Amino acid sequence: MARIALGIEYDGTDFRGWQTQQAGVRTVQECLEEALSKVANHPVSVICAGRTDAGVHGTGQVVHFDSDAPREMKSWIMGGNTNLPYDITIRWAVPVDDEFHARFSAVSRRYRYVIYNHSRPPALYRNQVTWNHRPLNVEAMRQAAALLEGSHDFTSYRSVHCQAKSPNKTLHSLRLYEHGKVIVIEAHANAFLMHMVRNMAGVLMTIGAGKRPPAWAAEVLAARDRKVGAATAHPYGLYLVEIEYPEHFGLPREPLGPLWLPDRLAP
Amino acid sequence: MARIALGIEYDGTDFRGWQTQQAGVRTVQECLEEALSKVANHPVSVICAGRTDAGVHGTGQVVHFDSDAPREMKSWIMGGNTNLPYDITIRWAVPVDDEFHARFSAVSRRYRYVIYNHSRPPALYRNQVTWNHRPLNVEAMRQAAALLEGSHDFTSYRSVHCQAKSPNKTLHSLRLYEHGKVIVIEAHANAFLMHMVRNMAGVLMTIGAGKRPPAWAAEVLAARDRKVGAATAHPYGLYLVEIEYPEHFGLPREPLGPLWLPDRLAP
Repeated sequence: MARIALGIEYDGTDFRGWQTQQAGVRTVQECLEEALSKVANHPVSVICAGRTDAGVHGTGQVVHFDSDAPREMKSWIMGGNTNLPYDITIRWAVPVDDEFHARFSAVSRRYRYVIYNHSRPPALYRNQVTWNHRPLNVEAMRQAAALLEGSHDFTSYRSVHCQAKSPNKTLHSLRLYEHGKVIVIEAHANAFLMHMVRNMAGVLMTIGAGKRPPAWAAEVLAARDRKVGAATAHPYGLYLVEIEYPEHFGLPREPLGPLWLPDRLAP
Repeated sequence: MARIALGIEYDGTDFRGWQTQQAGVRTVQECLEEALSKVANHPVSVICAGRTDAGVHGTGQVVHFDSDAPREMKSWIMGGNTNLPYDITIRWAVPVDDEFHARFSAVSRRYRYVIYNHSRPPALYRNQVTWNHRPLNVEAMRQAAALLEGSHDFTSYRSVHCQAKSPNKTLHSLRLYEHGKVIVIEAHANAFLMHMVRNMAGVLMTIGAGKRPPAWAAEVLAARDRKVGAATAHPYGLYLVEIEYPEHFGLPREPLGPLWLPDRLAP
């Protein structure tokens, strides 16, 4: 039995999230397992690094699966893509050690939240950005973001439905970038709680709109109570862009995304 | 009777182009006229600056229409957007002189053609970029593009179905930009022939892939025969981004697009 890791890109618009649910609900996991099972000629189960919600996009998602089918890596890519719908693409495939686990081996995750800040809604890219019509003060959002960096109890920023054992996570960085007409929030952490990025984005947009001061981000954090935060921001603008693993596993480090953003953002 | 100009953005994916055709065919013109007629409370006909093909996007489209309904400009915007589907947005509305004509008053048009140059197809943005899996030599494309600039008979670059009286157009500039993982061809001309940008993009991508030398772009031009060129490139990556009018009409100069590109590109 050999273990294989895949880099996956998907457009979350027409999926009810990552995880397989009941029959008739279209999920990324189900489509991917169906395609790989055809290539393998046996049932394949995949495990992903980060389960994404309905509407959330994945450009740097990573999965692993086991198969004893004697296939070359390019066959997994080409055969998989042939059997996948247009809104999922296998970007790369590499053989990995048996101790590699897409979720548990991951050292960190990186998400990007893309806000289109304009008085009129976007007709193009309406499913790929979050529209905010209020002029946002990026400098105030930056000050607030800095207050969330570090190791904290993120109870106030996680969904009440979150099943993670501990609310303690280390947010390595939470940075803001302006790019053309969009504002990008980039969040890098060892791991994220359910809805954590969208809840942070909701608080930062509230502060950016001038309804609360930057210090409010820290007050919400200290309260350890989801009820004191802002509404959970829409999923459309959220991208899972990168999963980081220890170097010895030898996984490719590209691509980040979305495709029109540079891999490394300058402030 | 007052004349009004509107700035329009649309996602061309689900339209059979701009122009109203037979019943049951979804076009941008038909959706826009239906929405404006509801706001005006009388039938409204619009005339656009540049008719776009099926799948082609418009971020800087301009139209005009006449109405004696006493509406403020913001009512045309808000009311129009309320009645429009999500893939069309009215960006701005301004009153204009009776002699303003969206098509005939236009001094120049600007299109952008966006190529995603990567070995694997994009899952995200698959309807908004043209995927080319061959590594493209942008410098060779740039040399070829320079040979097409100026006033020429563009017969070789126009569709055999083109109904324009003259094949002579002035291509003010044809420039290439690299932006993240995409290559952008920006074409600025007094006017364009049918499929002209897509046929130029087809020739430039053939040259970029190394199948022909840069000089071939000029050979195709000199032949004045559509049969000698490359295949017409896909519509997905094409955006009508700007229509330029004499300043005295007082039209807004924003937005260009797509939203993730800066308004003015640096080489």
